[in-house]
Amino acid sequence: MDLYEALYTTRAMRRVKPDPLPDDVVADMLDAAVRAPSGGNNQNWRFLVVTRPEVKAELGPLYRRSFEELQRTVYRRSWERAKETGDEAALRVMRSSAWLAENFEQVPMWLFAFSRNDPSGASIYPAVWNAMLAARGRGVGTCLTTILGIFAHDETCEILGVPTDRGWRLAAAVSAGYPLGRWGVAARRPVEEVSYADRWGEPLPFSVDGPRWRPDA
Amino acid sequence: MDLYEALYTTRAMRRVKPDPLPDDVVADMLDAAVRAPSGGNNQNWRFLVVTRPEVKAELGPLYRRSFEELQRTVYRRSWERAKETGDEAALRVMRSSAWLAENFEQVPMWLFAFSRNDPSGASIYPAVWNAMLAARGRGVGTCLTTILGIFAHDETCEILGVPTDRGWRLAAAVSAGYPLGRWGVAARRPVEEVSYADRWGEPLPFSVDGPRWRPDA
Repeated sequence: MDLYEALYTTRAMRRVKPDPLPDDVVADMLDAAVRAPSGGNNQNWRFLVVTRPEVKAELGPLYRRSFEELQRTVYRRSWERAKETGDEAALRVMRSSAWLAENFEQVPMWLFAFSRNDPSGASIYPAVWNAMLAARGRGVGTCLTTILGIFAHDETCEILGVPTDRGWRLAAAVSAGYPLGRWGVAARRPVEEVSYADRWGEPLPFSVDGPRWRPDA
Repeated sequence: MDLYEALYTTRAMRRVKPDPLPDDVVADMLDAAVRAPSGGNNQNWRFLVVTRPEVKAELGPLYRRSFEELQRTVYRRSWERAKETGDEAALRVMRSSAWLAENFEQVPMWLFAFSRNDPSGASIYPAVWNAMLAARGRGVGTCLTTILGIFAHDETCEILGVPTDRGWRLAAAVSAGYPLGRWGVAARRPVEEVSYADRWGEPLPFSVDGPRWRPDA
């Protein structure tokens, strides 16, 4: 797959089929993850591939409880506003996020990523994102979630046997499976609205005219 | 460029030529950045392209002071050990990091990334990494640095006019330019040493045998 096609179409793909992923797809994801840079090349990361039904059955209720807490707190106002104004893009995110929570156990693979001595996240999220891009290259949809780490960190780590006393922290849980929907370029605020030249607020001296990759190009 | 070639060969490329980057390369980097996922699709990011010599001249001394502080603190022991044991891979990282600090003003472009309401970093580093992968696709070398944010956050933001009072934080400064060296697959600890299946410590049920992409494959 072309690099730019992957960069432009690796969007959150939450609705996936229960079919298991072949080992070589998971191997591609993990091997791409470890190619990422990390501060001082310390590679202070661990990856945990969860596929066993018993383990997913323990984590699912925690994920749903975390999702409910997210809805009640961080996203309460924005989601209420989306319902009131009928913001279809935001409502789609809400519905597919709810689908993922309800179907946690049916997602064939969850990739958990852990880091240590990485307060900014700069040394783990490039690796996580590499795994997601590599999955896209094999036709596998993923979604990066952080709610288990935010709302149920210690319980999740206990279930998974993580030695938190040695500094390991859960950074992400990535769902992975063959998509039910279609790939496409996600709509985003254009570069011109979020980018500056040399000082905050100064416009770029050129036009970007995105998206610069399109399916039919 | 093939996706996997980019994932495997986008390594820290600190030594670069002073030649400026064409606008369309910078546009590719920025437009790839905004395709990344972010929590709730909030896109709470801003990107600042620094190319003007006056701005780099203000930032360079801060970067070098931050680099010296990094050497004195976080990396002191590991770099001393590298010198004692003659660990060539670690010494190469040390030397090229020092080159980047000494040549801050000669790097043609620095891409600054800012985020807000993103304590984990999960909503900014995929975007930063997308910009770096897109650069790789155009033959441009990059390096993700965080030391200005760690050791000189407020001074850097003041120079760049960042409204920190509205919650914006510097997440990364990425150097970018045409490489002096060659592209290649970075050596990493193999997947088998950093990955588990279902519970921490349980080995993967398959072999990964990385690197799974090679230049001559």
